[in-house]
Amino acid sequence: MMKDVLNKEDFQVVKGGITYPKGIKASGVKCGIRFNKKDLALIYSEKLANAWGTFTTNKFKAAPLVVTEKNLSLSGGKLQVVLINSGIANACTGEKGLKDAWETVNYVSEGLKIEKEYVAVTSTGKIGEFLLMKNIENGLKEAIYKLSVPGGTEAAEAILTTDTKKKEIAVNFKLDGEEVRIGGMAKGSGMIHPNMATMLGFITSDISIKGELLQEALKQVVEKTFNMISVDGDTSTNDMVLLMANGLAGNKLIDKKDVDYYKFLSALQHVAEYLAKSIAKDGEGATKMIEVEVKNALSLAEAKKVAKAVINSPLVKAAIFGRDPNWGRILAAVGYSGAEVVPDKVDLYLKEKIVENGQPLTFSRQKLHEYLESSDEVKIIIDLKMGEVNATAWGCDLTYDYVKINTKYN
Amino acid sequence: MMKDVLNKEDFQVVKGGITYPKGIKASGVKCGIRFNKKDLALIYSEKLANAWGTFTTNKFKAAPLVVTEKNLSLSGGKLQVVLINSGIANACTGEKGLKDAWETVNYVSEGLKIEKEYVAVTSTGKIGEFLLMKNIENGLKEAIYKLSVPGGTEAAEAILTTDTKKKEIAVNFKLDGEEVRIGGMAKGSGMIHPNMATMLGFITSDISIKGELLQEALKQVVEKTFNMISVDGDTSTNDMVLLMANGLAGNKLIDKKDVDYYKFLSALQHVAEYLAKSIAKDGEGATKMIEVEVKNALSLAEAKKVAKAVINSPLVKAAIFGRDPNWGRILAAVGYSGAEVVPDKVDLYLKEKIVENGQPLTFSRQKLHEYLESSDEVKIIIDLKMGEVNATAWGCDLTYDYVKINTKYN
Repeated sequence: MMKDVLNKEDFQVVKGGITYPKGIKASGVKCGIRFNKKDLALIYSEKLANAWGTFTTNKFKAAPLVVTEKNLSLSGGKLQVVLINSGIANACTGEKGLKDAWETVNYVSEGLKIEKEYVAVTSTGKIGEFLLMKNIENGLKEAIYKLSVPGGTEAAEAILTTDTKKKEIAVNFKLDGEEVRIGGMAKGSGMIHPNMATMLGFITSDISIKGELLQEALKQVVEKTFNMISVDGDTSTNDMVLLMANGLAGNKLIDKKDVDYYKFLSALQHVAEYLAKSIAKDGEGATKMIEVEVKNALSLAEAKKVAKAVINSPLVKAAIFGRDPNWGRILAAVGYSGAEVVPDKVDLYLKEKIVENGQPLTFSRQKLHEYLESSDEVKIIIDLKMGEVNATAWGCDLTYDYVKINTKYN
Repeated sequence: MMKDVLNKEDFQVVKGGITYPKGIKASGVKCGIRFNKKDLALIYSEKLANAWGTFTTNKFKAAPLVVTEKNLSLSGGKLQVVLINSGIANACTGEKGLKDAWETVNYVSEGLKIEKEYVAVTSTGKIGEFLLMKNIENGLKEAIYKLSVPGGTEAAEAILTTDTKKKEIAVNFKLDGEEVRIGGMAKGSGMIHPNMATMLGFITSDISIKGELLQEALKQVVEKTFNMISVDGDTSTNDMVLLMANGLAGNKLIDKKDVDYYKFLSALQHVAEYLAKSIAKDGEGATKMIEVEVKNALSLAEAKKVAKAVINSPLVKAAIFGRDPNWGRILAAVGYSGAEVVPDKVDLYLKEKIVENGQPLTFSRQKLHEYLESSDEVKIIIDLKMGEVNATAWGCDLTYDYVKINTKYN
């Protein structure tokens, strides 16, 4: 069972994004893959950073992810720059796709005079098309040029596809009297069911932390945040979350799991959770974010199974879009989740307790309809009363616009 | 690996339904649970029949299913009558729901002078509401009275909920010079992802067959038909398929897996497959049936995982509704299915081969668009080239109407 580390008193949220930490620069430009939209983002750390990534579990892993994983391994967990294009995913593109991805690494390495192994590349967009290499090569020159001005917001815009809003956040906290900063940006929208969707998350920090601890922190946080969101149950070929920490904050190096580590973990979890929830909220066609909290399961795996079954149920999602407090569909999803459940024990809350021990209580359907109508965020709590482990998942409703957006991908 | 038993020369399809076999009667009436629609169906065998059922794996199994399973166990696999109501599912109704289900058994037992243990009951419709017992009691009297006239079609109508069409079939074949008949009816529509949805299937036959072989035949056939369809990935609390065989055909009792048994199995599989495909075709809001055939997997479990991942992918389903040959989404689903897949080996056919060894071939997007536009049934073939095992799954596209129907359940 994972320790719940989030303590909102540990840090403060400020305005900003990926370039908030010291020594981090970014830019976002139009390279011409997407029509008249920014589609190439660059994140650059002045100082070589400890870094780690989590990658899709889809067997058709996109070429740039293969390349970035390889570089992280060659460099022993160090990165200095990340190049991201939207519009084309460079997935299912075979040998040529892989060659193209390595070639983009070369462009970046030469353009910024950085060792190849410190370069991460990634892509999001249409599967099965080859990258437009000339566009990337030229766009990159502009992106490098623009690093001289603060470009976090432009970068956050350049990674979007069907997203309607950019997703960025910045937090800070104190360690040894020094201000430590974390910045993050993400994109999501469709094909979102990360086990690592095209879900991309980038988090930067100026904290000074040992590489192994950085890796562990990222894994733990992704498991509880990005990996607990779902728009449609489709796991993308291109999901990836990257974390870089360049040490410029000047805090004493974190080399063990001390108070400082947990302070960082708490702030990092907030950043990741904020970005993950932003993706759920901005799911294709979504009008509501749905949060499903499962309480008192026998194990974390069981708690997650139930939370994910409910968050993925098209019937539950369509009912929420219809502002219909259809608790029967929620229980049905609990029942087919595969988790160990005793129906006669299950309590269900939708604003108030509406099911107790598996059976409906008397409640005002009209009042719940009004709650569903007026709330941007719908919270469902399922108490299994089997054990002591909790898990939370985030998703969104299923709407006409989801169907519309996905009948044709542009 | 299951033997593929379907041989279309073994039997012929004729007009008819559940009452086609000798000695089987049925009726369908309006008992007032649904507004001005038939909602109570009765199937009756003049002679006590060997029978078996498969039931939902949802932990919130509805009360009537609990009762019917119990009766099948008490009677050692014998049934004479089945009562089905639509409109209310009698699921998540606790002790009272169970008591109500037993009470409907009593009504039938008394009304037809049949031992209680030979009575099966089932329900489909809204979860969490109690049966209207007075309506059922009165409706049953009318249903019994109407058994004197052929009522297979009325019964097939009375079990529907959001279905747009009744689903029935009749086949016959010869054994020892005697004509053996099989009749079937089903309902489906939403919450269809059987592991046993509210998917109901009823199959009758006048074949003479030993109980254990009947059970085995049903299990094998359901696994390859009803359990391979999906409308939305939601497994209902009320799924059930029942098979009854009363022996009135006069064939020599089938008591081993001989040629006669396989002839029966072949005809039974056709009936079950026809009903299952009818459910997929008539999925809520569907404009197309989708058939996914997975070839050359390492095992049946792997083949099924891939077929089900593709048939369940909202992105694939929405693309088919948009008549968009978006093969990338299909491969992405193959990749996250959890099956052992080597991306560089996978071939994909949509009318023609469009992906070879994981990469797109040159094909006319326009021609495929026209194929998707003009075909009521879309066939996707995925060749994994890993082993020798195949599986087929059936589903439907994801449309505006699916969302519309499910924003409010009536």
